[in-house]
Amino acid sequence: MFTAEINLRVRYGETDRMGYVYYGNYAEYYEVGRVEALRALGWSYKEMEDSGFLLPVHSYSIRYFKPALYDDELILKTSIIAMPTARIHFRYEMYNRNGDRLNEGETILVFVNAETKKPCAPPEAFIKALQPYFPQ
Amino acid sequence: MFTAEINLRVRYGETDRMGYVYYGNYAEYYEVGRVEALRALGWSYKEMEDSGFLLPVHSYSIRYFKPALYDDELILKTSIIAMPTARIHFRYEMYNRNGDRLNEGETILVFVNAETKKPCAPPEAFIKALQPYFPQ
Amino acid sequence: MFTAEINLRVRYGETDRMGYVYYGNYAEYYEVGRVEALRALGWSYKEMEDSGFLLPVHSYSIRYFKPALYDDELILKTSIIAMPTARIHFRYEMYNRNGDRLNEGETILVFVNAETKKPCAPPEAFIKALQPYFPQ
Amino acid sequence: MFTAEINLRVRYGETDRMGYVYYGNYAEYYEVGRVEALRALGWSYKEMEDSGFLLPVHSYSIRYFKPALYDDELILKTSIIAMPTARIHFRYEMYNRNGDRLNEGETILVFVNAETKKPCAPPEAFIKALQPYFPQ
Repeated sequence: MFTAEINLRVRYGETDRMGYVYYGNYAEYYEVGRVEALRALGWSYKEMEDSGFLLPVHSYSIRYFKPALYDDELILKTSIIAMPTARIHFRYEMYNRNGDRLNEGETILVFVNAETKKPCAPPEAFIKALQPYFPQ
Repeated sequence: MFTAEINLRVRYGETDRMGYVYYGNYAEYYEVGRVEALRALGWSYKEMEDSGFLLPVHSYSIRYFKPALYDDELILKTSIIAMPTARIHFRYEMYNRNGDRLNEGETILVFVNAETKKPCAPPEAFIKALQPYFPQ
Repeated sequence: MFTAEINLRVRYGETDRMGYVYYGNYAEYYEVGRVEALRALGWSYKEMEDSGFLLPVHSYSIRYFKPALYDDELILKTSIIAMPTARIHFRYEMYNRNGDRLNEGETILVFVNAETKKPCAPPEAFIKALQPYFPQ
Repeated sequence: MFTAEINLRVRYGETDRMGYVYYGNYAEYYEVGRVEALRALGWSYKEMEDSGFLLPVHSYSIRYFKPALYDDELILKTSIIAMPTARIHFRYEMYNRNGDRLNEGETILVFVNAETKKPCAPPEAFIKALQPYFPQ
């Protein structure tokens, strides 16, 4: 398993009239989590797209335990939980500064060839970068 | 089961650089779906909140089959799939004008007493309004 | 001058913890206003883009008089206030159901050739569609 | 004048189908800029709200020179350009890593008493914290 951790500060515009982060905004936090997880592996999501791989999201789920509040500093742990095939599986856990677990979720993304729009294998070098984290 | 249907037009700001609706934005579409489903039952989500019931989201999941595109007219079917207890369970199906099923998802929301912040039963009149759709 | 009017319902995710529509979200309402103003003229913004015209925003300003609130039904009047050149100038006025003027704003957009990325004249047929509204 | 500088990374969900940051999303970047400018002065916007001062936005304007792109690292300079009265005036300048000036804007916010909902003077200690930057 490969795990990376980032910090995020809740923006005013991300709250709703309950005073909580709007339930739909965690998807963007998770996106930041996986982009930074790739960067920690030496990969830029942007360069991956520019080199012909799209990565649309296939499915997404989240369970909410406690709300994140305005100006909270959040800790987001993002893990790649299995060696990717045409699919790559991320798991997320979010905490606040008190150590409360706020939510956890999962996304499955699909490697798609930007020209053919068909699912494809991930870049070989990407597989290599991940191999140390998935010893056989 | 109670089902209501609405139409939504994709806004420019809801697309991303892939040209698709950003995967995180469907949560807001689903929110519109359930608010309008309640309205079709004679209930205003706003009035429910103003009368002391909060309805935070407990869990959310979505599977994406095809992307919604800029300016698409979307058809969203929102169903309440069981008689609510302290929890209310919504299911969603989204289609475009060609009849393509774009995504489907579920949310579970919890009735919470705004003062005690504890889960509570839904308003009695709300249960009554739903009874015709869940004959025993 | 050409003016078109639309209705918008405030979504939960568009509010912030003050209970108001977040100040940054009116830009998206205004975008919906101008897209529907073009549609009322027989023009699809999407088709304009697909036929090689980009319309990036050059400048935007807004004055806020009263906040829009959750579930409010808003009336947005969008006007094209001068015959477009390479620039097109929109003006917006937003009201709630009580007739309160909530905000007003302006945007200037630039017609850009999608290939050369340089400013260009608007499509000729678009100019023709607007001529009845700007008699000399 | 008081100026503070922050860095921001463009998120995927903030782009639109032109591949640019959506024109409406800069308002949220500017909000982050002013919140961090206050923090650099020793003030938390959240605590200001919690102690009874709301700060709704009175007006906002922005001119766009070049688009910010996905994954760009942005530099945002936020200035308080005059000693606040019941109004506080912020100016913003945004750059990318190449030193290109992308946009500049202004917001005026109003100090409002959370109870009376009427404009009021800013907290005295806030005025004191700013005095060194506005010598007479």
